[in-house]
Amino acid sequence: MLGVCYYPEQWPERLWRSDAQQMKALGLSVVRIGEFAWSRFEPEPGRYEFAWFDRVIEILMEEGLKVVIGTPTATPPKWLVDRYPEILPVCADTGVVRGFGSRRHYDFSSQRYRQEAMRITRVLAERYGHHEGVIGWQTDNELCCHDTTLSASPVALEAFRQWCQRRYQTVELLNESWGNVFWSMEYRSFAEIELPIAAVTETNPAHRLAYRRFSSDQVIDFHREMVAVIRQHAPDRFITHNFIPMKDTGVDCFALAEELDFASYDNYPLGRTDFLYADASNEAVTPYMRTGHPDYASYYHDQIRGLSQKDFWIMEQQPGPVNWAPSNPRPAPGMVRLWSWEAFAHGAQCVCFFRWRQAPFAQEQMHAGLLRPDQTRSESWSEIETLATELQQIVLQPAKPHQAAVAMVVDVQGQWVSEIEVQGQSYRFNDVQLQYYSALRQLGVDVDIISASSTFEGYRLVVVPCLPIIDDGFVHRCQTSSAEFVFAPRTAAKTSEFALPENLPPGALQSLVPIKVLSVETLREGISEHLEWRGNSLDDVDQKTFESQRWCESIELLDEKMQILASYHSGESAIVRHQNYTYLATLTSDQLLKHLLKELCQKVGIEVFVLPPDVRVRRRGDLYFAFNYSDACQTLPVVANTVFLLGARNLLPRDVAIWSVSQ
Amino acid sequence: MLGVCYYPEQWPERLWRSDAQQMKALGLSVVRIGEFAWSRFEPEPGRYEFAWFDRVIEILMEEGLKVVIGTPTATPPKWLVDRYPEILPVCADTGVVRGFGSRRHYDFSSQRYRQEAMRITRVLAERYGHHEGVIGWQTDNELCCHDTTLSASPVALEAFRQWCQRRYQTVELLNESWGNVFWSMEYRSFAEIELPIAAVTETNPAHRLAYRRFSSDQVIDFHREMVAVIRQHAPDRFITHNFIPMKDTGVDCFALAEELDFASYDNYPLGRTDFLYADASNEAVTPYMRTGHPDYASYYHDQIRGLSQKDFWIMEQQPGPVNWAPSNPRPAPGMVRLWSWEAFAHGAQCVCFFRWRQAPFAQEQMHAGLLRPDQTRSESWSEIETLATELQQIVLQPAKPHQAAVAMVVDVQGQWVSEIEVQGQSYRFNDVQLQYYSALRQLGVDVDIISASSTFEGYRLVVVPCLPIIDDGFVHRCQTSSAEFVFAPRTAAKTSEFALPENLPPGALQSLVPIKVLSVETLREGISEHLEWRGNSLDDVDQKTFESQRWCESIELLDEKMQILASYHSGESAIVRHQNYTYLATLTSDQLLKHLLKELCQKVGIEVFVLPPDVRVRRRGDLYFAFNYSDACQTLPVVANTVFLLGARNLLPRDVAIWSVSQ
Amino acid sequence: MLGVCYYPEQWPERLWRSDAQQMKALGLSVVRIGEFAWSRFEPEPGRYEFAWFDRVIEILMEEGLKVVIGTPTATPPKWLVDRYPEILPVCADTGVVRGFGSRRHYDFSSQRYRQEAMRITRVLAERYGHHEGVIGWQTDNELCCHDTTLSASPVALEAFRQWCQRRYQTVELLNESWGNVFWSMEYRSFAEIELPIAAVTETNPAHRLAYRRFSSDQVIDFHREMVAVIRQHAPDRFITHNFIPMKDTGVDCFALAEELDFASYDNYPLGRTDFLYADASNEAVTPYMRTGHPDYASYYHDQIRGLSQKDFWIMEQQPGPVNWAPSNPRPAPGMVRLWSWEAFAHGAQCVCFFRWRQAPFAQEQMHAGLLRPDQTRSESWSEIETLATELQQIVLQPAKPHQAAVAMVVDVQGQWVSEIEVQGQSYRFNDVQLQYYSALRQLGVDVDIISASSTFEGYRLVVVPCLPIIDDGFVHRCQTSSAEFVFAPRTAAKTSEFALPENLPPGALQSLVPIKVLSVETLREGISEHLEWRGNSLDDVDQKTFESQRWCESIELLDEKMQILASYHSGESAIVRHQNYTYLATLTSDQLLKHLLKELCQKVGIEVFVLPPDVRVRRRGDLYFAFNYSDACQTLPVVANTVFLLGARNLLPRDVAIWSVSQ
Repeated sequence: MLGVCYYPEQWPERLWRSDAQQMKALGLSVVRIGEFAWSRFEPEPGRYEFAWFDRVIEILMEEGLKVVIGTPTATPPKWLVDRYPEILPVCADTGVVRGFGSRRHYDFSSQRYRQEAMRITRVLAERYGHHEGVIGWQTDNELCCHDTTLSASPVALEAFRQWCQRRYQTVELLNESWGNVFWSMEYRSFAEIELPIAAVTETNPAHRLAYRRFSSDQVIDFHREMVAVIRQHAPDRFITHNFIPMKDTGVDCFALAEELDFASYDNYPLGRTDFLYADASNEAVTPYMRTGHPDYASYYHDQIRGLSQKDFWIMEQQPGPVNWAPSNPRPAPGMVRLWSWEAFAHGAQCVCFFRWRQAPFAQEQMHAGLLRPDQTRSESWSEIETLATELQQIVLQPAKPHQAAVAMVVDVQGQWVSEIEVQGQSYRFNDVQLQYYSALRQLGVDVDIISASSTFEGYRLVVVPCLPIIDDGFVHRCQTSSAEFVFAPRTAAKTSEFALPENLPPGALQSLVPIKVLSVETLREGISEHLEWRGNSLDDVDQKTFESQRWCESIELLDEKMQILASYHSGESAIVRHQNYTYLATLTSDQLLKHLLKELCQKVGIEVFVLPPDVRVRRRGDLYFAFNYSDACQTLPVVANTVFLLGARNLLPRDVAIWSVSQ
Repeated sequence: MLGVCYYPEQWPERLWRSDAQQMKALGLSVVRIGEFAWSRFEPEPGRYEFAWFDRVIEILMEEGLKVVIGTPTATPPKWLVDRYPEILPVCADTGVVRGFGSRRHYDFSSQRYRQEAMRITRVLAERYGHHEGVIGWQTDNELCCHDTTLSASPVALEAFRQWCQRRYQTVELLNESWGNVFWSMEYRSFAEIELPIAAVTETNPAHRLAYRRFSSDQVIDFHREMVAVIRQHAPDRFITHNFIPMKDTGVDCFALAEELDFASYDNYPLGRTDFLYADASNEAVTPYMRTGHPDYASYYHDQIRGLSQKDFWIMEQQPGPVNWAPSNPRPAPGMVRLWSWEAFAHGAQCVCFFRWRQAPFAQEQMHAGLLRPDQTRSESWSEIETLATELQQIVLQPAKPHQAAVAMVVDVQGQWVSEIEVQGQSYRFNDVQLQYYSALRQLGVDVDIISASSTFEGYRLVVVPCLPIIDDGFVHRCQTSSAEFVFAPRTAAKTSEFALPENLPPGALQSLVPIKVLSVETLREGISEHLEWRGNSLDDVDQKTFESQRWCESIELLDEKMQILASYHSGESAIVRHQNYTYLATLTSDQLLKHLLKELCQKVGIEVFVLPPDVRVRRRGDLYFAFNYSDACQTLPVVANTVFLLGARNLLPRDVAIWSVSQ
Repeated sequence: MLGVCYYPEQWPERLWRSDAQQMKALGLSVVRIGEFAWSRFEPEPGRYEFAWFDRVIEILMEEGLKVVIGTPTATPPKWLVDRYPEILPVCADTGVVRGFGSRRHYDFSSQRYRQEAMRITRVLAERYGHHEGVIGWQTDNELCCHDTTLSASPVALEAFRQWCQRRYQTVELLNESWGNVFWSMEYRSFAEIELPIAAVTETNPAHRLAYRRFSSDQVIDFHREMVAVIRQHAPDRFITHNFIPMKDTGVDCFALAEELDFASYDNYPLGRTDFLYADASNEAVTPYMRTGHPDYASYYHDQIRGLSQKDFWIMEQQPGPVNWAPSNPRPAPGMVRLWSWEAFAHGAQCVCFFRWRQAPFAQEQMHAGLLRPDQTRSESWSEIETLATELQQIVLQPAKPHQAAVAMVVDVQGQWVSEIEVQGQSYRFNDVQLQYYSALRQLGVDVDIISASSTFEGYRLVVVPCLPIIDDGFVHRCQTSSAEFVFAPRTAAKTSEFALPENLPPGALQSLVPIKVLSVETLREGISEHLEWRGNSLDDVDQKTFESQRWCESIELLDEKMQILASYHSGESAIVRHQNYTYLATLTSDQLLKHLLKELCQKVGIEVFVLPPDVRVRRRGDLYFAFNYSDACQTLPVVANTVFLLGARNLLPRDVAIWSVSQ
């Protein structure tokens, strides 16, 4: 299913009908509207204007399109800000109020704003909750983008104190939990507690962790209330939210997604790749500047699918150059179609393009749409036409029933801990996670990205790149699983209150991996030392010497019978194995990671592929998909007589191939 | 004519006479005084002390020197700030008040400061307006240096609201003009409008453009009032202002210069070059660290001459190392003379050195003067002696009657638009302009730099490097001109309210260049792609493959008969030509630019030269000047029997040659 | 003597006894306690709890350990901050209050805080001043770390005005001293004076110098009062302070140390080296990332010894990875022992390790201790065991009686001047000082680092790397000394009020070095030009061409008979010599510096060594020490039959050798 984001309030009414007709003709079936239109819904306090919106929905419905309404709470109008200036968030780094003039100028801790946001949501839901043209709802828009999770406002401080009281009950317990005896940081009452900002030097990491948890909870609470309001008035419609990458919000998106029917994602491969390669050389970025990194879009697709463990939507799909990255190249021809098919392959149910028509004014006038501002069709139009035709011919089964054989565990606490305790500037949690993910994908292996509280049932390999805080349930689920487990350094390095475990890291994981982390050293980006492979011979290489980098733990083996797979240049153990649990005490190179993961896959019977460079494969239901990110024709690793539903064994640059598993 | 900047208030009175005598003996005839002396003119509120200033002027006059008085408004004294703290500007980035302790601590929107500034100006003008020793006036000093154009003060906000009301009349028109429907940014009254600062993410570019226009207007208003005060009391004296580069102020300097008799410039080639090469390698900067970039001083000379379309003054000329760049080398021997001759060649009427004697105290104690603090003569003295002697032998005709054959159009709106809408970090408007200017200068071509509202009469080639906003008058003047026109990418890309033109860029220019910009992509600094030359064979090279870089527009040709001069690696058109209008859809390398501009010059009969490296030529009246920036002897491209008024055909390093056109 | 830093308040009481026993068993004899425990000494205003502290001291004493008490004033508790929020410092860069939540959240100018700090100090000193278990006191902790010397609070402003009044008596003298006539910066009264911050552009350097002096004085006053309080109640105990590098505080540490019995230092070679190499390549940093720069620890040891001209203590010695540098490698095996011996060789009387047991919570949980949080022994334990045994066998004479032959003069004013007047970004005063120090140390020469007001008696070579402000006493002491003197560029470049000397630099030094600095140029980091050696032939090299860099003065020779040792590429003099005074007008390469210093050493009969790479030697009393920082075995330059107390002529990597002078 295809759709589009549409802003009727930005265009003369005379265009609405033809817009709808053209959408339909292009093969679109869904239109998202409304999410920035508060100043048009309620031009003055309490004076509502919905007649125009009624007409829009009517026209879309008449032309055979289904509507998703976004609540307009990301953009409170000026009159609301002037009436209640206390709703504005405060920058935690500078203490400066973040004012009106763009979007997201509200504080999640403001009860006043919450009332106002729920009021406009209720009014909309009451009016359109049962409208036959409206199939679903989007809450707010890209919650917490523009670094709005944290706020240092007076209302945030007050809410934080209450949150602390609820969590710790007594201030004595809080002091003890945080270790406030250190540097005389002890509080005598909850009313004495400050936000962990603007201090002379670094504040207590436990304090900062609490602040991150609190801030995440405030977002989740706000969102939960909004979902409840919509649910009450639109009980038979789906509710979703368009997420941005979890790393950009620092919010527990698994918790945020709990109330939703399914999660959605806003997919901008080129802008995100430009940021991913911010510090990289031109040589590194050039091959991907018009395609995006071949694993970076799907890395997020798989995360989003994991949020609800359901097929997801792409609520916004980049259709051309965007306006917000440091550099904004044009997608290579074919990429809009490729990205869309890639989303479907990874479990998308619907792909909506952002946006219907490029706005000639305001902040996003350099952001491409399907139409140009002069009504002509943009470069992506024909690709979407092709895509729409192809989609009619290919039957997509629900993605979810086909669980991947490999699970990668992610947890926002990994982000929190690694951002709070830098220790080595070259450790960047998202790069670590992506490195593991990419190694698996280069082997042609499908990956489910799941939360740390998920079951491991059905998985044969579980990879844990950055999970410093674990709980007993996690350990228990590891123990009772027959999967192979791979733990990266830093696993279980902290208690839930940001302390070292009593028995030292990996804390409770010691029952599975009988080692003790004696100390950690961090090395600068780009400094590598030898890592000697001591495990089984790696079948496809003679190489024995790899690299140890960035984060290197010195470990003591608590069980003599543990297998040592690799050792540091000093001879100490670096990668060890106990039963079905492998622990890497160091970050390492892509090459070693691929060899290790390949060996483990083969051990548990997961098929791996020798893929040509920059080609990726993915299975959905009984279909295989292949994507060629390179600019050369590549031969797929399939038997010569494979029958293709799309594409061919010799896959053209930026082309897609689809074939059936059941051949 | 030569002069010097002098601060008698900083020296014991006993030195004044001998200072004046030495100035005269050196060959100077003009002395600028007074512009930072407010605390000496008015040591307490309303108590004036001018006797000392009378004596200074008397002495200078007696020794045969002419005086230019600078108004002291760049340095309001402490008592004034304490009395009226509301005059202080507020930093738009941080919201912090910018206090007393240096200079320029006033807000252009402060009516209170305006009253005070006009009061001290009036008192001075009344007293010295008809003084026979005073030949002219300088307004304030380097208006808007130290980033003082913008202010976020309460008075600036109030003035901005009034400015908006004057410009848009109704808030509905403002909302529509800015596209405020986007993100519910609509205002209900002018009183709701904020400055486009401190928002959560980027504010509306139209809003920011209005703020830049408003801020520029405030400076112009302030300045106009000051000129009027001086004019009233000194009707027969010239009034000028010492400009710094327009890019450092973001003010419409053409408008600012309107009231002036002529414009002046403060010329610091080494400091500016150090900043120009801020991100460059040591290899790139080393050849020019003691000479300055060979086109960068004259790039500004030609701009300053263009402000008033008249011969200009260098009000401050660097005479040795300065103190304000990240690194501050010493000028290579000969450069002070070379820079001065270069200024004269480009239309200077007078060159004043900054400053007479190096101050041993306060902020500029490491800034060279003509004398050292111990009264000895600095390195530049002998060069200036030589220069003074040479100037007596060479008759300089007014520069202006000899209009250049080539005009380059500049407009502060190019700066505003490109700074507001970054889109690609590698697009830097001043580098783009300088690249075009430098290409022309390397061909030995003289350039007039003119405003977008100037006539093109008399020009045979008009180059437009960065003009995103045009008006109908501009188009009409292009249409009725027989010159060749070269438009760089981004020309006419925006309406006057920062929107895309209805017919897409280049908007109204489509009547001359029948193309449509379909989309823009931006590439990182240093990434280049092939650009294939498809035009006439370039006579001096076999090369056909050049470079496309940084900002690349995809264009549709609206007229089949357009000539395609170059195409992208993809085969799409990149440089096109229609009648006498050439449009470059991409930024490119120096080499292609030189070839293209050379071809166009030859087409319209403009003589180009094959100049040795780092040699530049310039014609003023019937004299040719050549400047050798290199450290090798270079042979000038003139016939062997050329008779030189100065220098020789084999031009020594850092030397100047002058010969007559009429030979 | 060895010791350890211990935080009993952070551990259950049941551990105290066994901790003490283990300390003793390891060979430690000193324990520092108390310096962050205010919230435990005084949990509520006026309610003191010392019983627990009594017990701790009792136990330590019973187990044969001696106690040093640190006053807890670096960590005022929350109730104190809430009661007196005016004690909080204000960031001079941003104007933001620096709040509670870490440490050092107090303003040295707050009289209120001073009262409170002296109160808690008095209470402690009264209680433990005569306690037999307590041998000494540490004032506060690492005064001024985390950039807390400067504050922009209202109390700081008021105190600054008073300080100005005391120093200048009349505002006229202040105006004249600072050159406030420049830019109309004149004040009419002391009440008009502002802090030199938050101005539009740079403030008067004399104003900034006064602010630095004032700020340093405030720290010294605060500290003097604290020492007096302790002295009163603990008259028979030593008082020391644990300094961090002077460059990190900008305080006159010589003055700060005056009241102390001796100075102490917190020695973290790896963290400091990571910062030292912040901008260096990986190639440069890798050899030293686990050892530290071979001169950087001793550079500070020699400074600390110089503060009191007495043997010093290492109050905190890094025992493993730390947590506060951008990257935190593990010390190479052997380095904890090597660093400790190095400290003893340079005059340490006691080395205390920081900390006894790694805390599993709060800010420093990734900072190694001697024990791990699980009570196991960390990597450094066995090295310290070895060290303790060795120390029993080696008799260390007091270091001080053996004065070095070479003195290096340092002065915080060198830091102030060079930070206030940048002039060239590549001039970094600490790098300049370190370069001179390192050149001497590579020659195997011992160095005393002394203040500018010290006697030069007994020294044969005095090196002055960065001393822009000198006084007559300094000149007189130079004149009456028979030592060779080496002055680096910038010596005597400023008067005490931050002006150029009337006779130009080097001001009063002209009587020794008859030259005049005509102008200064600064070159970018990495740009080098030829420097031609014209002095005596350098015995060990044919090389004549060296490098001129970064800061290059043009000098005039005022005495024709001066010897020119080197000249610039332009032929001008660059290194000159008059009698026993050598002046370098330029910064240069390590190589030239070593040759020059070697020649001078030989001239005055100071023995130099040809040391293998990364080997250093140092004499204390009648013992020679050698340290091998390299990872290869190195042969010491001693006669073959040398008898070693420790180590051997073929010195192993990271090993220490000791032999007697008297052999």
